[in-house]
Amino acid sequence: MDGQISAYLKTHAERFLGELKDWLRIPTVSADPAFHADVLRGAEFLRSHFETLGMTSRLVETPGNPVVVAEWMGAPGAPTALVYGHYDVQPPDPLDLWTTPAFEPTVRDGKLFARGATDDKGQVFTHVKSVEAWLKTVGRLPINVRFVVEGEEEVGSENLEDFLRRHREELACDIAVVSDTSQYAPGIPAITYGLRGIFACEVTVFGPRKDLHSGVFGGSVANPAFGLARMLAKLHDEAGRIQVPGFYDDVLPLTTEEREQFAGLPFDETAYLSELGASAAVGEAGYSTLERRWARPTCEVNGLFSGYTGVGTKTIVPARATAKITCRLVANQDPKKLVEALERFLRANLPTGLTMEFHTDHGAPAFLFHPDSPYIEAAGTAIERAFGARPVLIREGGSIPVVTTFRQVLGVDTLLLGWGQNTDNLHSPDEHFSVADFQRGIHASAELWECLASVPRS
Amino acid sequence: MDGQISAYLKTHAERFLGELKDWLRIPTVSADPAFHADVLRGAEFLRSHFETLGMTSRLVETPGNPVVVAEWMGAPGAPTALVYGHYDVQPPDPLDLWTTPAFEPTVRDGKLFARGATDDKGQVFTHVKSVEAWLKTVGRLPINVRFVVEGEEEVGSENLEDFLRRHREELACDIAVVSDTSQYAPGIPAITYGLRGIFACEVTVFGPRKDLHSGVFGGSVANPAFGLARMLAKLHDEAGRIQVPGFYDDVLPLTTEEREQFAGLPFDETAYLSELGASAAVGEAGYSTLERRWARPTCEVNGLFSGYTGVGTKTIVPARATAKITCRLVANQDPKKLVEALERFLRANLPTGLTMEFHTDHGAPAFLFHPDSPYIEAAGTAIERAFGARPVLIREGGSIPVVTTFRQVLGVDTLLLGWGQNTDNLHSPDEHFSVADFQRGIHASAELWECLASVPRS
Repeated sequence: MDGQISAYLKTHAERFLGELKDWLRIPTVSADPAFHADVLRGAEFLRSHFETLGMTSRLVETPGNPVVVAEWMGAPGAPTALVYGHYDVQPPDPLDLWTTPAFEPTVRDGKLFARGATDDKGQVFTHVKSVEAWLKTVGRLPINVRFVVEGEEEVGSENLEDFLRRHREELACDIAVVSDTSQYAPGIPAITYGLRGIFACEVTVFGPRKDLHSGVFGGSVANPAFGLARMLAKLHDEAGRIQVPGFYDDVLPLTTEEREQFAGLPFDETAYLSELGASAAVGEAGYSTLERRWARPTCEVNGLFSGYTGVGTKTIVPARATAKITCRLVANQDPKKLVEALERFLRANLPTGLTMEFHTDHGAPAFLFHPDSPYIEAAGTAIERAFGARPVLIREGGSIPVVTTFRQVLGVDTLLLGWGQNTDNLHSPDEHFSVADFQRGIHASAELWECLASVPRS
Repeated sequence: MDGQISAYLKTHAERFLGELKDWLRIPTVSADPAFHADVLRGAEFLRSHFETLGMTSRLVETPGNPVVVAEWMGAPGAPTALVYGHYDVQPPDPLDLWTTPAFEPTVRDGKLFARGATDDKGQVFTHVKSVEAWLKTVGRLPINVRFVVEGEEEVGSENLEDFLRRHREELACDIAVVSDTSQYAPGIPAITYGLRGIFACEVTVFGPRKDLHSGVFGGSVANPAFGLARMLAKLHDEAGRIQVPGFYDDVLPLTTEEREQFAGLPFDETAYLSELGASAAVGEAGYSTLERRWARPTCEVNGLFSGYTGVGTKTIVPARATAKITCRLVANQDPKKLVEALERFLRANLPTGLTMEFHTDHGAPAFLFHPDSPYIEAAGTAIERAFGARPVLIREGGSIPVVTTFRQVLGVDTLLLGWGQNTDNLHSPDEHFSVADFQRGIHASAELWECLASVPRS
């Protein structure tokens, strides 16, 4: 990367921080309609900021909050990266737990405290400033860059998929870049190359038509709460393996290299369990805690209810019992196929005298970026140059729906490059972003454009 | 029984019905404070009625509604019977489902419709009128009779036990008589000689300190909802036998005679299941539906809750899961011993990584009157004379707490002699009592005093 870019980043570092503070002062809380005018102001702040850099930029209306779209397309034939982020923030409550007010950005001990500092304004802004550094020094970027910065991520991104579908041609790109995750730990930057998929469902087991007196009738009819318990108890064997036939058939197993990688990461299991208040590491036999969280499918009961749930005793045989279930999936498991397999399994294990209903909720496949992909390689090099350490390749156990949407709508994979830390208090009081991580993020982003330019277009 | 008594019952039958109607017009709804003055009026109605018969009678104050106490103790050396009943009634709601208003007693098709017609004013009144018949003809009763008619049965009889303890000497008796149950079926009068006992408890299984994100953490910590399901699933084997060690050790088995008796009762299992909306008769292998309900212990989940129970999906590993459990007991099982055995069993089956808390609620032993008892024999004879059929000996699956209290406080057994029918709409709109059953009940009660007089005092 041109030496004048590095110099520009150093020279303008204070101003960059000041501009981010200006943006953070606008309370773009999407969950609370009282902040609606601020949300619009926050979007306009970013749109006009893009224009000052010499990019084309506009607000695209949606049924909810507008999406800020910007682009610099001056590198014909070169790849196009699409940076996704969000300008809306979580509500600041509880206000009294903030050391300094949520919307008065303050630097203490090298950290910038404010709602949105890391989630996601601060992280988005690293890419904005890296583009500025290229344009204001070299006068051009080595690749084409588009930005899609939405205002409803904290309230479920309800209008994003429709927006992407309606604008898919204008948003054509080769790779998506999202900085809304974290480094593995301080001093250990990371690229998240895998996310688990999910399917959600609900099973209700029906017994008698209505709750029955457990004295008069108990013992003579099937109890749906017991029936459901028996069905759920069969879902795992003693080794924690899911017993639904075919559940593991399509699982892409971890490679030896991946397992070695994960095993090499610093991970204090005792501290982890103590933090969660869990008395033991429990899960599928033969896998480490990180593997269980990142790379193995799961089946969890998220909720359970039947009969009387108030104080004291009500002597009934309940009429029904319900379990809410989600399964986390890994590559290459098919949510649709597996939710059907789960339903079949539950029906096959339904005790005599009971009936059941099964409802399927949302589902999404897992995301796995091959660790040897040239995009991962390019991002790794960029991060190493900025952070002084080769990033570790990690996965995450949750889902990031937009990654699936990018694959489905735009046909591209996503680089998940997090500059923050797990401990930055996302969604909590005293959210913050290390100023050094902010600056390294800008640097890494500036390197990224160059590294991505050399990836052959598929 | 003296012929003049039968004649008196016939002559005054219309007046008896009219007096009962007068009492039923007073809406003695104990659940609703708006009816408090009526409750007191209803108590006073009965108290003064006893006085007109030449009995001593008074209202005994409690922290709740007063108890009507009356007695005729003019048979020194003869046994003393204590008639228990209640003058309070269920709320009449939903009002619009009554054919005629709940507190405007109306006879249609030989049935007296009113709230409290059978539960329990009508049934209590049979004993009041039989005493009248003896006193107004023979001038004395063959035994001593006490009445305890409370006003809080429909709201849990909270003050009854304390009342009985405070007045135990004044209430000394040889046998208690309660008419608050039903005949087995029309034309099949019954004596209920057994009730099941009960213990209630609640088990909560704890996993992580708080609900965890099922993506980030799921698969690496024990899920308490699954843990609880596994524990509950172990409570019964495939044959429906409770697996708690020692659970059946003290069970007094049904005799061959009892099993033959029950098997000889008309019972339409298909109609029974259809009425309940249950698709199959399910329970402990080797027992009939009546045996399962009346004479076998059970273990039921009454309520179950864990994690998210609202609409849709919440992707969590819940922090805890709770089951409310009641076990029905039979003679000679000890509630205290068995609730401890259940706790031990659950703890022994608690999966790794979870903790549990166990809370014990109320418990009461079963009640079993030996079918060959001279009291049963005496009551059987009285009923046969009045109803023209020997009563069948049945049990009931529920508990009637006052029966246990009489045993514990007064040291006496209870004759459960129900004059009504299961189909009399107790607690429902259009509650009614067959006028013929009312009259046969008075007759049976009048015979009962004579039959009980010949039972040797223990």
